Amino acid sequence: MAIGELHRRVGANLRRLRKQRGVSQARFAEEELEGLHRVYYGGIERGEQNLSLSAIEDYASRLGIDPLELFRDPEGAE
Amino acid sequence: MAIGELHRRVGANLRRLRKQRGVSQARFAEEELEGLHRVYYGGIERGEQNLSLSAIEDYASRLGIDPLELFRDPEGAE
Repeated sequence: MAIGELHRRVGANLRRLRKQRGVSQARFAEEELEGLHRVYYGGIERGEQNLSLSAIEDYASRLGIDPLELFRDPEGAE
Repeated sequence: MAIGELHRRVGANLRRLRKQRGVSQARFAEEELEGLHRVYYGGIERGEQNLSLSAIEDYASRLGIDPLELFRDPEGAE
């Protein structure tokens, strides 16, 4: 697995969940993720943020999902 | 999933890999993980360290495994 692949997976899965809910990055960051800054959140979706395990658990709990869902293959190949 | 479960999974999977190789925490930290402090590594195994995605990718690459292996159910139920 390429370096940065975990970050890309988390970002792509958050984007997938956001699109399923049909909301903008700004609204998803502000409302669903309860006050995350829009610009910071955009970096997460692009796989540019080196998130910690606690941050991932926190976002998953705010979204009501299992944190492991953020590590699955976003194209659903697995 | 309980808060801290990701940290516990990574720790338990590292412990499982270490035991498969039959080495102590000190040797695993120093040699396999190339210079990690033994005490810090002990905390990782206990699920007490809030690792970042880059750290997890780094340890996986030093161990020659897929980083996702560190998130699987350590008891192999999945």
